[in-house]
Amino acid sequence: MIITSRKNEIVLKYKKLIADKKERLRFAAFVCEGFKLSEDALSCGVMPLSAVFTDFAVKKYADFYKKVAKLCKLTVISNDLGEYISDTTTPQGVFLEFHMREKPEISGKLIADAKKLLLLDHIQDSGNMGTIIRTAEALGMDAVIFTPDCPDIYSGKVLRGSMGSVFRLNLIPADLVSAVKTLKENGFSVHSCVLDDDAKRPDEINFNRKSAIIIGNEARGVSPQITDLADEKIYIPIEKIQSLNAAVAAAILMWEFKRGS
Amino acid sequence: MIITSRKNEIVLKYKKLIADKKERLRFAAFVCEGFKLSEDALSCGVMPLSAVFTDFAVKKYADFYKKVAKLCKLTVISNDLGEYISDTTTPQGVFLEFHMREKPEISGKLIADAKKLLLLDHIQDSGNMGTIIRTAEALGMDAVIFTPDCPDIYSGKVLRGSMGSVFRLNLIPADLVSAVKTLKENGFSVHSCVLDDDAKRPDEINFNRKSAIIIGNEARGVSPQITDLADEKIYIPIEKIQSLNAAVAAAILMWEFKRGS
Repeated sequence: MIITSRKNEIVLKYKKLIADKKERLRFAAFVCEGFKLSEDALSCGVMPLSAVFTDFAVKKYADFYKKVAKLCKLTVISNDLGEYISDTTTPQGVFLEFHMREKPEISGKLIADAKKLLLLDHIQDSGNMGTIIRTAEALGMDAVIFTPDCPDIYSGKVLRGSMGSVFRLNLIPADLVSAVKTLKENGFSVHSCVLDDDAKRPDEINFNRKSAIIIGNEARGVSPQITDLADEKIYIPIEKIQSLNAAVAAAILMWEFKRGS
Repeated sequence: MIITSRKNEIVLKYKKLIADKKERLRFAAFVCEGFKLSEDALSCGVMPLSAVFTDFAVKKYADFYKKVAKLCKLTVISNDLGEYISDTTTPQGVFLEFHMREKPEISGKLIADAKKLLLLDHIQDSGNMGTIIRTAEALGMDAVIFTPDCPDIYSGKVLRGSMGSVFRLNLIPADLVSAVKTLKENGFSVHSCVLDDDAKRPDEINFNRKSAIIIGNEARGVSPQITDLADEKIYIPIEKIQSLNAAVAAAILMWEFKRGS
């Protein structure tokens, strides 16, 4: 049976989970949209709570449809409803519901084993957030610690921008003031990325030890209170214009981190 | 007098220039939207052809309004019309019309003087295009040469993403096959960024000479025909996932270029 009513409770639930962070928190669940991203999620070994396919997607992704139908309750909806619940302009009609991942603590084994951490202070743009998480995984960071006012990692835009890294990388929402203190107590040297020509250049930093890099808000940078707690300030030398995009600055520093470690 | 009709010819022209690349080409003009970006444009010394301010913007940006009114014909429109012509969700109500910049040739003085070039093969995403242009200026590239199927540099999204770099950096649409040939004839070594573990690492490349880097399409990379023409292939070593965002890959290579030169 193909669901065609917007009042159907599964349709309503998916619509809410996709559109609204509060609803995601209420259910401790989120929806992963799109074939490739959903396939990535399953390949990480996470089990879906439920799934919704459009009539079109059942045919187009027939093998994946059969696979998912064996794993969880799967509902088929009309193509129109797929467009209704989607937050993309050209929905593929594949939607999987997952439990939110457990949040690791900034203590214990994770921090004992970690060597490379990225800290994010109030990133504003969802596209930047997704790209930063994707790059952090690709360049071998052990975790990303971020202020809770960063874009929700379970929003469609961050999930897609991260290319599935949200399912794999350690992602820890935290107050950065206490996080930086904890990291320093645990032997990390902490570097704050600033727009200050007097700060150290990336290649003057010794990344060959437990280190954390802090990237700040797109407009205001890292908050002074947090920069003051850091061991060192880093400046990426640039020309003419005033700043780099936050995801670009993060990428250059993580790349230097990888080179230097 | 404040214009309130959607049928006003200036309103119609601005709406078309903002929304439609064909109209921009027809008039050889484009609209720069937003206070900061417009201020940046003027500070580069380019003269506006005309300007439109909303009633709200006339008051909010009073000094800038007076400055612009001395430079060109300025039309005041209602706030509603500002929203109507804008392609942003929260328009500031400042719109300046400019002539398109002249397109430099890949020959002559520019190439004789240039040392660092970035080549873009069919970038798809406007956000990436803007970020890449912004980063290219910040990291001191002499020009960006791009296939004409890349996002229009005069679209609002690219202009905003570039943070005004579109007004300052040499940007050259070109067929990359003949561009790469011309560059090689002019003493450039050309490096194609690929997803191939056998290719050279960025720090194995000698960037201390006239060099060009090619970044490819988000999904398909640099086309094989163009990679075959390049002197060397570069691979940014990454973990687990399959690729970096195009703007991130471009940033890491331009950063290495800056470091190595």
